[in-house]
This record gives sequence, structure tokens and C-alpha cells, in this order.
Amino acid sequence: MRRALELAERGPARGVNPRVGCVILSPDGDVLAEGWHRGAGTAHAEVDALSKLAPGAARGATAVVTLEPCNHVGRTGPCAQALVDAGVARVVYAVDDPGRHSAGGSRTLEQAGVDVSRGVLADEVEGFLEDWLFATRERRPRVTLKWASSLDGRVGAADGTSRWITGREARADVHRRRASADAIAVGMGTVLADDPALTARDDDGALLDDQPVPVVFGVRAIPAGAAVLRHPLEPITLAGADLADDLEQLQRRGIRSLFVEGGPTLASAVLAAGLVDELLVYLAPAVIGGPLTAIGDIGVATIAEAQRFHFTDLVRLGDDVLVVARPGTAAHPDTPTRERV
Amino acid sequence: MRRALELAERGPARGVNPRVGCVILSPDGDVLAEGWHRGAGTAHAEVDALSKLAPGAARGATAVVTLEPCNHVGRTGPCAQALVDAGVARVVYAVDDPGRHSAGGSRTLEQAGVDVSRGVLADEVEGFLEDWLFATRERRPRVTLKWASSLDGRVGAADGTSRWITGREARADVHRRRASADAIAVGMGTVLADDPALTARDDDGALLDDQPVPVVFGVRAIPAGAAVLRHPLEPITLAGADLADDLEQLQRRGIRSLFVEGGPTLASAVLAAGLVDELLVYLAPAVIGGPLTAIGDIGVATIAEAQRFHFTDLVRLGDDVLVVARPGTAAHPDTPTRERV
Repeated sequence: MRRALELAERGPARGVNPRVGCVILSPDGDVLAEGWHRGAGTAHAEVDALSKLAPGAARGATAVVTLEPCNHVGRTGPCAQALVDAGVARVVYAVDDPGRHSAGGSRTLEQAGVDVSRGVLADEVEGFLEDWLFATRERRPRVTLKWASSLDGRVGAADGTSRWITGREARADVHRRRASADAIAVGMGTVLADDPALTARDDDGALLDDQPVPVVFGVRAIPAGAAVLRHPLEPITLAGADLADDLEQLQRRGIRSLFVEGGPTLASAVLAAGLVDELLVYLAPAVIGGPLTAIGDIGVATIAEAQRFHFTDLVRLGDDVLVVARPGTAAHPDTPTRERV
Repeated sequence: MRRALELAERGPARGVNPRVGCVILSPDGDVLAEGWHRGAGTAHAEVDALSKLAPGAARGATAVVTLEPCNHVGRTGPCAQALVDAGVARVVYAVDDPGRHSAGGSRTLEQAGVDVSRGVLADEVEGFLEDWLFATRERRPRVTLKWASSLDGRVGAADGTSRWITGREARADVHRRRASADAIAVGMGTVLADDPALTARDDDGALLDDQPVPVVFGVRAIPAGAAVLRHPLEPITLAGADLADDLEQLQRRGIRSLFVEGGPTLASAVLAAGLVDELLVYLAPAVIGGPLTAIGDIGVATIAEAQRFHFTDLVRLGDDVLVVARPGTAAHPDTPTRERV
């Protein structure tokens, strides 16, 4: 299985399909063939491995594969059936396939009399496939919501000016995180107001190697000449009326992680919909006051409905501080009894 | 001088007057007498020391005193004249008296032919008298502004509920800091809305040994039956129309440090007036949104007018984080050139 995981790592880190590796062993334990998946439209790992064997050579063999063989008829046939057809006697895999259409391969195998073992090196493969598994299980990308504000939660002054609330180190950190996300999202209001490029850049403004797909939420058209239209990757536009549905569309297009940068309307909508998996707040040592809050109304009518997170990291970045939080009550120890302040 | 500082430490840490110690030495360097100040209305340190000597015994002696001998005719006579009258030949002191009425003692001494040396152990005495020197020089108490908010800067939900945004550890920290302040201030709106006790308490609600004087800003009367009227110290009420003038009144009443707890109206007014010396923001890992911001308008029209602070401390307190900041631009390294986000 460790060898299968090594093979899986040769595949592409982004896209609709997970990285999968497969080793086919003879009944004596000799390696007969190896395979891995090279991305959507190419052979799955099991079929890639089988393709290297003469017909009949896999009869009675064991297939060791990092993910449950798929049951899905896509651009390639279902791997479970291919293994049955090849006469494989035993399949060992790490993690169940959570895909809506692809799951169930182990049942197909067992019904055909193949011996199936699951859960081998499951934790390691879970970690390796974390983003893909999350996106496939939740049917949406993992969402990171980021804002940069003053200590009082303002993203700009009354006249709309906001450059720069945070300093160089904080902005560089944002660009590194943009680069590691599959996609970056803003609302159309931000496109119209700020004309963001939505690229990941280094200190000198040069593009980093990895770029997130730009996603714009809103019903208005992106204006001709907008910087986002010069992004190396083609922008995706989504209406934003049903965020859960929009995010499922992104997941189906292979977006596993989404970096939401605002503005306040989109940020508030994502919070209100309960779709935030990670919160990044870059805090500048400043106080601004006034109307431009990072977050508007998120549907919290009374304090018990506040969206609770827990801090996972605090980072000094130059003059600023990055606060990282994830959802979930680190169960609050206080009974809310009436007491005077 | 080190002995004089030890004597000074015997005095009371709060009140209108500073803690001062004095040692009178013979021309040969023998200690003739020691004295210290025991609080407003009692003898100053120099007079206290002289009172232990027979008439004429201080002739030709050296007086070593932690603070410039006062020139002020208050409830006690001016120390500078008393030293002259006693025939002291030399005065050594650490720190100039910044008092509006009390300063100038060294000139009185020199004009009378006394040899004066200043600045001995000045840094240590500056540190020892820090709050008193600040209050006397600035003619106002040192102001700490505190608020507790969610990550998006909200102090409550739309319906006004706010208990508890932060947890037990954060609240205990607030009570410790209340106890170490001379006074604690809120606006009348907070008195009417929350009926705060404005005491410093331990986890069980018992009063701590040190209590801040409660100060309420506002023109309306404190309602009969308000919790603050049961405070062990009598509340001070100030109009709040001219904060600088109000704070000078507090300083004249011996308040060296003021802990401002809000609500948003008072907090915003103190910020708008540029009167914040230390900012404490207790951040809960929650997002609330909606109308109840910790700070309202503070007169920042454009981003260049944002009130800049610098972080001096970040403390995890249970589930929460305390951010400590002091005013002053840690000079911002970025030229605000136009660049795309």
C-alpha cells in the first residue's frame, strides 16, 4: 500500500479526480504491474496497471489500491468490473470512495466473489486525499474566508479608502494562500469597486507558479477590460443566489478548495449559509470606526446564535496579526447565568 | 538615593501626591534622618525627615530626595523653603517635579545658595513614579480602553444580548486589570442598559482588595437602586461634554489611571479625542454581524486618518485572545501606491 501511495503522488494535485495508485501482486507476492491516475479522461490507476499485463496474467492476483475501485461508468469503464474481468482474486484498499456515482465498487467486487479488505493505511491516505475527500463528501470545496480589518472590524474608512490596512508581510501571506487554493472568489461588487486581478503574486508583483481559478459571484456581467479577464485562468461566474448549489457546481468542476476574499456582501452570505471551514482574519493595529464593517448581517438575532469558532493559530506578520479559526464550539465552559459586569 | 527610594515605597500607592522618600546626610556622609510621605495632608518627605532633627542639626547637611522638593504652598509649606530654612547646604534629587503649582523648587533652592544636583537614579525613580508622573505631566490619568468583541468587532447581537461573548479567563483578566486601575469608567447608557457594579471581583464574585473608583460619564442622573451606588467607593459623575476637561478633573482628584469599559459611545468619544494610551481588545472566536459594533464613528473620514497603534502583547485566555496595543505608528513600511488586490 505504501508503494501504491507513492505511485498516487505522481498524479496531478488538482482536478476533478483524486490521485490514486495501484500495485498488482501475484499470489506469491511478486509485483506484476503498477499504475496511477494521470488526471480526468485518462485511465484510472487500476486499469492503468492492468493495461501493462498480458490477458489472463492477473488471474488470481491481488490488487492493492489507495482508493476503493470505482463503480462508475465515466469516460473510463468502472474499475471494479475491470478487476473482476481480469480475474483478480483479492482487492486491498485504503479509503472508501465517497463519490455519489463512483461509490459501491467494493460491493460489485464482493458480489463477483472477489475477497475485499479495506482500511489499510487509511489514515495516511485520508491525509493525502484530504481536500478531495472533503469536497467529494460535502459536495463542495473546502471554504476559507479571509478578511483584513482594523481592530474594530473595519475594512475601510467612511470614504471607501482602504489601502493599506495591513502591511507587506500580511499581504504576502495572503498571496501564498491564494496560490495554494484551487479557486479564489469575490463578489461582483468588489470587481466593480476594486478591479482585483485575483492572481497570486510575489513581492515584486510577478505571478506565482500556482494560480487559483478566479470565481466571481453575481448576476451582473464582468465589465470588459476588468483585470480579472486577464487572469491566466478563465474566470467562472456564478449567480450567488444559492451558494450551496453554486459551490456544488465548483466541486463538480474539480475545485476542492475555495479562498473567499469578500467583499462584505459575499463574506456575510457565506457565513450566513454556514459554509465557512476556515476563517483568516488579518488584524491591523488600527482603529477606524464608521460604516465599513468586514461583515454585515449574518442572521444572528440573539447572542446564542453567534457563529462559534475556535482559534487554531495566531501569527505575527510584520505590524499585523493573523488569526486563524475553524468552526465548532470549543464547548463554552460558562453557563450564561445573569451576572453583573 | 536607593535608600530614599526604599523609604518612598512605604507611602500609599494611590492618591493625589506621589510617593517620595528623603535621607538627610551629615557633611561626613552619616545618615542624620529619614522621612517619607504618607499621603495627602501629611508632611512631605523632606519635612518629615527634618522634623526628626533638633533645630540647627541640618545645617550644612545634604538632603537626598527622590523628587524635586516642592515649591508649592499646599496643606504643608513648600519643602524647598523648609530645606533652606533648615540650613541644608546641598540637595540631590532624581526627577523634576512636573506639577503645575509645585515645580520650581530647585530654582528656589539655588537662589538661596543651596547646591543642587538632579538626575541621580532618574530612570528608576521615573519607573517607580510612572503613573503619577504621566498624570501630572499630561494633566489627565493614563487611559486604558477595553472592549470585548467577536472577530468582526461586534459586542452583542441585534437584540442587544451579549452574555458572554468572552469566557471565564478573559473576564478574570479584566477584573485583575480593574483592580490595578485607580478608576473605572462607563457611559450613562451602559449604566442604564446593563446596571454594572463596576467592582473588581474574583471568580466567585467576591470583591478584590483593590477597587477602582467608579466614574460615570453622562448628564442624566444615576438611577436610584443602580448597582454602582452600592460600590464600596463613591461614584464620580462627569458630564462627558469635554473629555479633556473631565479627565483633568479626575487627575486633580488623584486618579492616575482610568480603565474605560464602554459602551461604544464613550469608547468612540475617548478614541475620537485621541485620549487612549493603551487599548485592550478581548477577541472571542465568534462572528456575530449586525448593528452592535464595539466602536462607532471616531471621525476617520479617509484611511490615512485611521488611528494607528502597535501591538505590544497577544495573550491566549482560555478560548479567547487578548490583544494589547499602544498608540503610535510603528512606521508603516508601505508607500500607498495604487496596486491591484
